[in-house]
Amino acid sequence: MPVAGVRLAAAAAGIRYQGRYDLVLIEMEEGGSAAAVFTRNQFCAAPVVVAREHLAKDPVRYLLINSGNANAGTGDEGMRAARETCRAVASLAGCPMSQVLPFSTGVIGEDLPLLPFQQAVPGLIKELAEDAWEKAAKAIMTTDTRPKLCSIELELSGGMVTVTGMSKGSGMIRPDMATMLAYVATDATVDHSLLQQMLDEAVAPSFNSITVDGDTSTNDACVLLASGVSGVSIAQGGEDARALQSAITKVCMYLASEIVRDGEGATKLVEIVVEGARGTEDARAVAYTIAHSPLVKTALFASDPNWGRILAAVGRAGVEHMDINAVRISLDDVSIVRDGGRDPSYREEDGQRIFDQDSYEIRVDLGMGNAGTRVLTCDLSYDYVKINAEYRS
Amino acid sequence: MPVAGVRLAAAAAGIRYQGRYDLVLIEMEEGGSAAAVFTRNQFCAAPVVVAREHLAKDPVRYLLINSGNANAGTGDEGMRAARETCRAVASLAGCPMSQVLPFSTGVIGEDLPLLPFQQAVPGLIKELAEDAWEKAAKAIMTTDTRPKLCSIELELSGGMVTVTGMSKGSGMIRPDMATMLAYVATDATVDHSLLQQMLDEAVAPSFNSITVDGDTSTNDACVLLASGVSGVSIAQGGEDARALQSAITKVCMYLASEIVRDGEGATKLVEIVVEGARGTEDARAVAYTIAHSPLVKTALFASDPNWGRILAAVGRAGVEHMDINAVRISLDDVSIVRDGGRDPSYREEDGQRIFDQDSYEIRVDLGMGNAGTRVLTCDLSYDYVKINAEYRS
Repeated sequence: MPVAGVRLAAAAAGIRYQGRYDLVLIEMEEGGSAAAVFTRNQFCAAPVVVAREHLAKDPVRYLLINSGNANAGTGDEGMRAARETCRAVASLAGCPMSQVLPFSTGVIGEDLPLLPFQQAVPGLIKELAEDAWEKAAKAIMTTDTRPKLCSIELELSGGMVTVTGMSKGSGMIRPDMATMLAYVATDATVDHSLLQQMLDEAVAPSFNSITVDGDTSTNDACVLLASGVSGVSIAQGGEDARALQSAITKVCMYLASEIVRDGEGATKLVEIVVEGARGTEDARAVAYTIAHSPLVKTALFASDPNWGRILAAVGRAGVEHMDINAVRISLDDVSIVRDGGRDPSYREEDGQRIFDQDSYEIRVDLGMGNAGTRVLTCDLSYDYVKINAEYRS
Repeated sequence: MPVAGVRLAAAAAGIRYQGRYDLVLIEMEEGGSAAAVFTRNQFCAAPVVVAREHLAKDPVRYLLINSGNANAGTGDEGMRAARETCRAVASLAGCPMSQVLPFSTGVIGEDLPLLPFQQAVPGLIKELAEDAWEKAAKAIMTTDTRPKLCSIELELSGGMVTVTGMSKGSGMIRPDMATMLAYVATDATVDHSLLQQMLDEAVAPSFNSITVDGDTSTNDACVLLASGVSGVSIAQGGEDARALQSAITKVCMYLASEIVRDGEGATKLVEIVVEGARGTEDARAVAYTIAHSPLVKTALFASDPNWGRILAAVGRAGVEHMDINAVRISLDDVSIVRDGGRDPSYREEDGQRIFDQDSYEIRVDLGMGNAGTRVLTCDLSYDYVKINAEYRS
């Protein structure tokens, strides 16, 4: 659903391929607020550096997003290019350059061509429209097989507001305090610090709890816009803030799960649930060790309930003083490991029944404490190798 | 080459498959010494627990090694089974059970059948011979495609000694302070503490610096035997100790590189060299992040010099205060990254020339200090997925 005060446009600018939508412009009404989180990869891309600078300086009016070229690993030249793309928008829109945030996704290490931007931006500004979310979601795709969109309308004390978001991502997915590209907007009125707080809270269980291949991108970014055009104002700590937070988190959770479901070559969507940990760090270490194990991931692909690989991953996760006799592992409702070995009640056909499903849960109880976590992941298939060996992403 | 005082035998005991050599017995003369390192996976297998117990208790006389079943994740029943296999050897050999160390490799989580051991051990004891290394190296294989053997003869001040070793391993390879199964023997006379020190030193740059898939096995073990039958005695700190250490390290380095070269589905052997790090921990973090990245590994497989993936891996390795402008990355003699981006002198065809080779070096200089490390790894191919999706290893 459109968000009042937020307009979008997309174009096939020919940045890497001809005839493929690859450039998006998002405009927010003056007076709105914006919050963002970015990748922690130290080789972060030029547009990430520039977006951070601009965000700190001025209120956001425009987001300019290209696919096909990540503008990462491009040195000083890349920084100049990222700024030039912002200038192209600012000069036509009549705003300072620092009100434009640039975002890029695609191949790393190639110079960003500026001509496609100069040619396409005038048209983008003319075509801005509130109902162009789907077109924009398609234009930011790289190895994605489908656009990822989500929208929620909710009634608050001051009236109706909308939360709509889009994301992209399929490989190089292991967001670290940020995400692949995701853009969420609402027409509620939310001040900047509350908006940033809401985004941080929404990102933790969603984009920061997924992994396809453990490779944190150089270009991860997630932006939350609040146009304020609905006139519905949100006060910190109130019932409305809780309701809006819940809607924003739901949109992020859906968009994050869509990224894993569309993971490169993915055929399975698996939630790793770790509980009974001494702390969240231990829980996350166990969950990600399972989620990144090539042996576990190939077993998921094969629908082979080869649980010894899960057990081996738990054992190498680096949790200190683990009592292996206290560890319990189950697949959905089927208990497989207890007392340091196979649950006597486990039957291979029960494990097979779970693994034959498209989506299921691997649950590990460490029996050490009360902390836990959830991580969403997918399998490792022939197609993952194919996509990444045959396509220069 | 045979090692005086060390005899071996192998049999097709039918532990998992019929007609495939799967059981090895190694005997060392009385009066020799032994050193060992084991996996740090907390779900370590029953034979690892029993071998540690026995090693601490009595001098080693026998090593009993089976493939086809890891006896891991098997709880109390697995512990009983591991002890029973030692008893089968001890009762016929006329030695205490604790002079026998058990080792297992193969599928995790299935009960170890005892009948094959009871049937095969009498024949093994009868057939022990000094020239059976190759037969033994074949019998410990699982997904390995070839046996891994290495031997060095060296002249010390007291006379000639031999160092011979064998190893197995192809998948679930990311040894942690230990290795997959490897057995090295010498006929020199070396006391236990010096022998353990020599093994620790040899293992660090060899078995502890390789990775196929990042999955640390539950059954890793490396044993070094010194029979003393040559009569050549080694004193700590002398020239002879240095020469023997060098020979043992060389044998371990060769056996470790053979494991990676024979990695599941591997088509490339790649050494990741990290230098200019503040400390070894940072250097290892960077080297293993590159070596485990599915995106880097699929690019190696495709012979696609997609160096942006290497750069992204360096950036997410968790090294604090990295100055990306000081980082340099090269492939053999070809510089690809400097000053935060592509080296202006880099040409795609130069990268292609390196990546077309079967074996090469990826070198990362962090420009932060003087620590460094080397890690040997391989690519991620269709065959890795095939082997692990279609075979329950």
